[in-house]
Amino acid sequence: MLPAAESLNRRIAEQIPVTAHMGLRITAWDGEWLRMDAPLTANRNDKGTAFAGSLVSLATLAGWALITLQVEARQGAATVAVYHSEIDYRRPVKGDFQALCRFPEADQAEDFWRQLTVSGKGRLSMTVRIEQEGEERARLCAAYAVTLIGTSG
Amino acid sequence: MLPAAESLNRRIAEQIPVTAHMGLRITAWDGEWLRMDAPLTANRNDKGTAFAGSLVSLATLAGWALITLQVEARQGAATVAVYHSEIDYRRPVKGDFQALCRFPEADQAEDFWRQLTVSGKGRLSMTVRIEQEGEERARLCAAYAVTLIGTSG
Repeated sequence: MLPAAESLNRRIAEQIPVTAHMGLRITAWDGEWLRMDAPLTANRNDKGTAFAGSLVSLATLAGWALITLQVEARQGAATVAVYHSEIDYRRPVKGDFQALCRFPEADQAEDFWRQLTVSGKGRLSMTVRIEQEGEERARLCAAYAVTLIGTSG
Repeated sequence: MLPAAESLNRRIAEQIPVTAHMGLRITAWDGEWLRMDAPLTANRNDKGTAFAGSLVSLATLAGWALITLQVEARQGAATVAVYHSEIDYRRPVKGDFQALCRFPEADQAEDFWRQLTVSGKGRLSMTVRIEQEGEERARLCAAYAVTLIGTSG
């Protein structure tokens, strides 16, 4: 895993305390794909399966982490905030689970990078899969707003 | 607040441990409107505002709680599970926050009660507002599947 992801894991655990209670952390990041894991035990619900709030938190945070890592690597410090999302809970999650997402292909992200370079702001949508044992259990589509910090200096 | 909501608060805290870390609890339930509160401190993010995952967890759980209370009051024990949701994060939440929702009017819920009576299963969509200091900050639309338990006895 690239060192930037280890550093981001520490920031997430310190700055978003709920994620530490949920046990959410990036477990793979190769510059293209990001994986974030969560244990069932801390996230169980009344049915003994994963709490919907934990699933949507994991997926939203995974998309946020992927964009944060990509933008920080290319453009420096930025604020990333989700402003809309939609999720399908397809099957109950009965064990530890993972979110998987990939940064959009270069041609799809071209407008985003252009906006960010020109205005310091950009918007990007991400699809995040949630899997248990390699099978998809939920899918999130989320839209994020990005603002570069301190680029005028 | 009606006693059924106190009892449901205890079940939520015991059976969905993440909600206890988030400090989510029903604070008003009059048989029509339900309010669920959350403190900012436990739910803060890297920007010092409320974590998106906490907002969507609160709203999803509030809709779930409202349906659970209504179905248990009218039909007895049931399993309630969210299967789809969509959320707009409209403005950052900078203080303690609340979810507010109301059961659909009788004519809108008529099909739901009929399905439930006939087949023991029904589906219902809810809108949940998230407010801070009386102002809307986010809005969730979520769809839930309900299955009655042990009605054959």
